Amino acid sequence: MKVDGLAMRSIWLEPDGAGIGIIDQTQLPFALVKRRLITLDEAAHAIRAMLVRGAPLIGATAAYGMALAMRADPSDAALDRAAATLLATRPTAVNLRWAVEDLRGLLAPLPPAKRAAAAYARAHAICEADIADSRALAEHGVKLIEAAAIKRGNAPVNILTHCNAGWLAAVDWGTALAPIYLAQQRGLNVHVWVDETRPRNQGASLTAWELGGAGIAHTVIADNAGGHLMQKGLVDLCIVGADRITAAGDCANKIGTYLKALAAQDNRVPFYVAAPSTTIDWSIADGVRDIPIEHRDPSEVAEISGRLPDGRVARVRVIPDGSAAANYAFDVTPARLVTGIITERGISSASRAGLAALFPERAVALAGD
Amino acid sequence: MKVDGLAMRSIWLEPDGAGIGIIDQTQLPFALVKRRLITLDEAAHAIRAMLVRGAPLIGATAAYGMALAMRADPSDAALDRAAATLLATRPTAVNLRWAVEDLRGLLAPLPPAKRAAAAYARAHAICEADIADSRALAEHGVKLIEAAAIKRGNAPVNILTHCNAGWLAAVDWGTALAPIYLAQQRGLNVHVWVDETRPRNQGASLTAWELGGAGIAHTVIADNAGGHLMQKGLVDLCIVGADRITAAGDCANKIGTYLKALAAQDNRVPFYVAAPSTTIDWSIADGVRDIPIEHRDPSEVAEISGRLPDGRVARVRVIPDGSAAANYAFDVTPARLVTGIITERGISSASRAGLAALFPERAVALAGD
Repeated sequence: MKVDGLAMRSIWLEPDGAGIGIIDQTQLPFALVKRRLITLDEAAHAIRAMLVRGAPLIGATAAYGMALAMRADPSDAALDRAAATLLATRPTAVNLRWAVEDLRGLLAPLPPAKRAAAAYARAHAICEADIADSRALAEHGVKLIEAAAIKRGNAPVNILTHCNAGWLAAVDWGTALAPIYLAQQRGLNVHVWVDETRPRNQGASLTAWELGGAGIAHTVIADNAGGHLMQKGLVDLCIVGADRITAAGDCANKIGTYLKALAAQDNRVPFYVAAPSTTIDWSIADGVRDIPIEHRDPSEVAEISGRLPDGRVARVRVIPDGSAAANYAFDVTPARLVTGIITERGISSASRAGLAALFPERAVALAGD
Repeated sequence: MKVDGLAMRSIWLEPDGAGIGIIDQTQLPFALVKRRLITLDEAAHAIRAMLVRGAPLIGATAAYGMALAMRADPSDAALDRAAATLLATRPTAVNLRWAVEDLRGLLAPLPPAKRAAAAYARAHAICEADIADSRALAEHGVKLIEAAAIKRGNAPVNILTHCNAGWLAAVDWGTALAPIYLAQQRGLNVHVWVDETRPRNQGASLTAWELGGAGIAHTVIADNAGGHLMQKGLVDLCIVGADRITAAGDCANKIGTYLKALAAQDNRVPFYVAAPSTTIDWSIADGVRDIPIEHRDPSEVAEISGRLPDGRVARVRVIPDGSAAANYAFDVTPARLVTGIITERGISSASRAGLAALFPERAVALAGD
């Protein structure tokens, strides 16, 4: 999407054909800082420290991480080390595992001398496919907004989203925000309630920045506010992203998503999850039981980063000395609370039958379970 | 309760018999700053700017505000002005209206020369009654914790609370935290999950500070985390306070409470509201429709206060320039989601019948509806 009028992606191959460019998302919204990754360890660090985040972008970065590793050392040992290093960075987003295993499957049979070029080409293809998925997903999702707009007449369609599932979370366009961008391009009147999304504030810092850059009306709210807004009829539609979706439609997403899904159900507000099929983990069904939930550093709860009145960015501590904090990064929204899953092939019910009907070639693998 | 070994209340009459002492709660947890209120306008400001907050303490401060007004000018006009000024400070907590109307009803028939002394005496009595209510409420509530402790064996009873309903929210002891203090005094093994409670962080800054001061095990979590904890069986009991409870048991409390009640219901976790009967508004039944919800300044969402590494306390902006924010201060948890209401007379079902059975002298007033 465009930033200050210039087209931009969240990850790109540098002109030298070797380095990988990313936006350091920990610096947003107050500074747009680009960084160059040139080693496997830099790529792994970028994922672990969340310079890049969002399930599709984590997958794309991992793919390029494999390419960077092969560029330095295309041996079998290096290939194994690259896969292990990247898989260990973050546990919840399944796109990470998907991309690493895709690359390893491609590269392992190749002679070492051909691995680097093949890895770069495949990483590029993964990025292009992700953009195509986002764009296709947007076309399906925008129909929901168009239908809501008819009901709303001249009033804006109020959409609530949680965390950031925009172009910063994918390669371009995004997942939950992709239909919103398309709605705006088609002249629909939309307004987005942006959950702040503590502890890392990806809603306030990334989603608000994206929407502001695109000129889309939006209002940042505390994560606590969504239930009240739904009780008062101020939300027409919820759309969120996902980090992993089970074959039965349970959706892991940023911590707090489950609470909004409960409120949506209680107030009969449609609750949609938008994700490319690379986010579906066909190997598991019960998300609450089987999706690993990342525990991150408690300092992300104990401290908040922001801009001081003098313009400097600083971290402030918000809990007393001596108090403990805990930092659960994701939760799982059971399929029963999800109205539908917006994918690149269409909108599916959040169910094994629905997902299998859209992706029959994947569902075959489930025949035995 | 004790602070650094010294017994302390949240509001007190200064030794001169005129000024009212309070803790400036906006300075916690990093500084314990006491302030002296000597005029009606100072009392009104303390409520409006949330130097004092919490429904019972707002009521107590309003009562002393009436006394301060009468001390300066005991005329009928001044009495009306004092009531109007205090009633306009904050809309949601019914204790404010209750205290102001109680004082006005007492003072109006008196000759002006007797009003100041009568007002001080009544304000003092309201504070003492509030402490007695909190202490009685604690006795009823602790039975829930004792029952949970039997089930848990040697493991701690995990209690989740939202916002601050401790002694800082009342005059002493508190509401939701009162049974927890009593449980600790009785040697029960308790651990409290403390919701941060954005946007003003009363959980992280006040509840954590209170619990730390009392030596009660606690962990601060993002407001988003409670649903996940309940899904994983890590919460035995929720106890929250209230700012207004309708005659039918709908409970207004800090924004986000409703989301936790939904999660509690979805995971069969008992969800209790603790409040003295002064928090019950017998004049209304449908809380979602009829309880006014305060909209506060959006800057409370856009900015967060905390301590810099150098020890200074500062506010940092956390949303992009140009993004709007909205700040809804409370939400309403429908009675159907509330397991019970812990009052000074016992634990009631969240229903008209339950509350009327505990407070029959109030229920009489409802005979006509």
